[in-house]
Amino acid sequence: MYEQRLAAVRRSLVSSKLDALLVTHLPHVRYLTGFSGSNGICLLTSRRRCFLTDGRYRDQAKEEVKAFRVLVSKESLSRAVRTARLLAARMRVGFESQYLSVDSLLGWRKVFPKVTFVPTRGFIERFASVKDELEIRYLREAAEISDKVFRKIVSLLRPGMSEQHVAARIGFYHRKYGAEGDAFEPIVASGWRGAFPHARASAKAIRKGELVTLDFGCRVGGYHSDLTRTVAVGRPIPRAKKIYQVVLDAQLEAVEAARSGIAARALDGVARKCLWKRGFGRSFGHSLGHGLGLQVHEFPRVSSLSKEILRSGNVITIEPGIYIPGFGGVRIEDDVVIRDGGCEVLNRSSKELLIV
Amino acid sequence: MYEQRLAAVRRSLVSSKLDALLVTHLPHVRYLTGFSGSNGICLLTSRRRCFLTDGRYRDQAKEEVKAFRVLVSKESLSRAVRTARLLAARMRVGFESQYLSVDSLLGWRKVFPKVTFVPTRGFIERFASVKDELEIRYLREAAEISDKVFRKIVSLLRPGMSEQHVAARIGFYHRKYGAEGDAFEPIVASGWRGAFPHARASAKAIRKGELVTLDFGCRVGGYHSDLTRTVAVGRPIPRAKKIYQVVLDAQLEAVEAARSGIAARALDGVARKCLWKRGFGRSFGHSLGHGLGLQVHEFPRVSSLSKEILRSGNVITIEPGIYIPGFGGVRIEDDVVIRDGGCEVLNRSSKELLIV
Repeated sequence: MYEQRLAAVRRSLVSSKLDALLVTHLPHVRYLTGFSGSNGICLLTSRRRCFLTDGRYRDQAKEEVKAFRVLVSKESLSRAVRTARLLAARMRVGFESQYLSVDSLLGWRKVFPKVTFVPTRGFIERFASVKDELEIRYLREAAEISDKVFRKIVSLLRPGMSEQHVAARIGFYHRKYGAEGDAFEPIVASGWRGAFPHARASAKAIRKGELVTLDFGCRVGGYHSDLTRTVAVGRPIPRAKKIYQVVLDAQLEAVEAARSGIAARALDGVARKCLWKRGFGRSFGHSLGHGLGLQVHEFPRVSSLSKEILRSGNVITIEPGIYIPGFGGVRIEDDVVIRDGGCEVLNRSSKELLIV
Repeated sequence: MYEQRLAAVRRSLVSSKLDALLVTHLPHVRYLTGFSGSNGICLLTSRRRCFLTDGRYRDQAKEEVKAFRVLVSKESLSRAVRTARLLAARMRVGFESQYLSVDSLLGWRKVFPKVTFVPTRGFIERFASVKDELEIRYLREAAEISDKVFRKIVSLLRPGMSEQHVAARIGFYHRKYGAEGDAFEPIVASGWRGAFPHARASAKAIRKGELVTLDFGCRVGGYHSDLTRTVAVGRPIPRAKKIYQVVLDAQLEAVEAARSGIAARALDGVARKCLWKRGFGRSFGHSLGHGLGLQVHEFPRVSSLSKEILRSGNVITIEPGIYIPGFGGVRIEDDVVIRDGGCEVLNRSSKELLIV
């Protein structure tokens, strides 16, 4: 698995006229090496592959990183690269310019004054965004756990509970059902707070007649799930039901359209057009979705500005929403695997409006 | 409060010969403006103070950011700065070079080809590391919640429970007792796993006779707690008791020595010498502590390499440990406020070896 990834990256090194690639963004380091700690980099040349970390991670690196020479150092990692003579003068070394800080680059340049550091963008993303079946198995497992948590939460939800209390339960059940932890702080937004797509859980009590948007996810093997459902606590008013149906239709249309070969912006457009046609275009202010993997938001973006064509093996979220200040909001989100001719929806949670 | 912070930063702008400061690191943006969202920057000149964010945060910014002119934009934030004519040619603009990515800097330079962007290090840290009483109140509250969670966990802990189950409870009770969430994924390391200072909670069951290291924290008002206790499940063997006592002595000596005016490396040395004298110097592989605030690890570091002198108002952790491969480990950690002539320990959890 790692061999395949490395072979692909190396071919790309040659075509990019780079002598080496310095990978510092931790999710990318993990993708290439398997290392799950908080400090490590890898350096790839046409002949060598080295992983460097500090003493805290000696045993963990030995355990996790099999396809690389592992170097453990007390020095800064750039000095450790020099000590091990991994880079030579006049080499062209690609680095991840979207992630490396200005100071870190200055540090590398100081240690290697004769090396040319070349900014690269999307180098690892291109490969990491196409998931293999092992990665999809982790993503499926994470999605299944979040589905199970959703069922549990629905069975517990009562008027009078605070949003924060519901968020506490979500985190608890994610771990209880075997996840490594939450993917992000759960969003629990009830009533008028549902109008804020990024509302965190607050001390507000959930009241009868309100819609509640639950947006949460977990991690399995480092891979994330990201699930949103909006439920009604008590009988919803007709307007709420109507808005729910519009979002559901947009979500289903986008799921139906998702397949390899479609432009990400065209997929965003499918849901957006559906909302415009029903008079809610202005109420959908964010993008349709995002790539999902070792990061909860990753390449490819699925927005009106995206330039990517979706490929078989991409895993993305599809999450249209309607947000109305003072009234509240509805969002419905699934994680899907893009395939030839269609997509596989990883979540099984019902999308009919649940009344609890 | 924000006025005082801004006045101090501005004085420093003048003495650094900068015309403006671009603050992009989110905890620093929050420190200066109060903004708690995920996308925002601030720009300070001698006459102006602007905060910029995107449409998702329009209402939140209006609510949270009182001392700044708030600009909400659809453009990239650098273009929004240009549109609002906030920077002029030939200005010297400081930026946070430890945090800003190489690509972001290239973006700013492209939008402002006639502006000189000057790397700065530790600019905001110098101010943010000295907490005012409001900040200390949040830190105290976070520490109190973690203390309460520790008592609860001790009352629940039984042989046969998995580490992961304990971690799930920690997250649940943090939120239940009013925290915004965990400060980081709780560490629950039992038996031999205690030898790894960075062990996360695993599926391993906790067994009778083992030591269990619990390292966890929460957030209140954005401020973090970070508490470690090691407890014995069933009667510990004499060696475990001895090691516990050595760590406790080192921790108490360091707490006793902590006060304004002491060098951070000297404080690290107090605990380290204590461990060396008792024959465990080699078994303490990490630094004594770190600053604590809007970030769980922040300035100042408290290690053998630190160059800082501790100041009244610094809030740091004091967390010596002993780690023995195959055997396990002990770590004891408190959060303390540095004061003139001593320190205030924010945690009240007992440091005697608890047998559960």
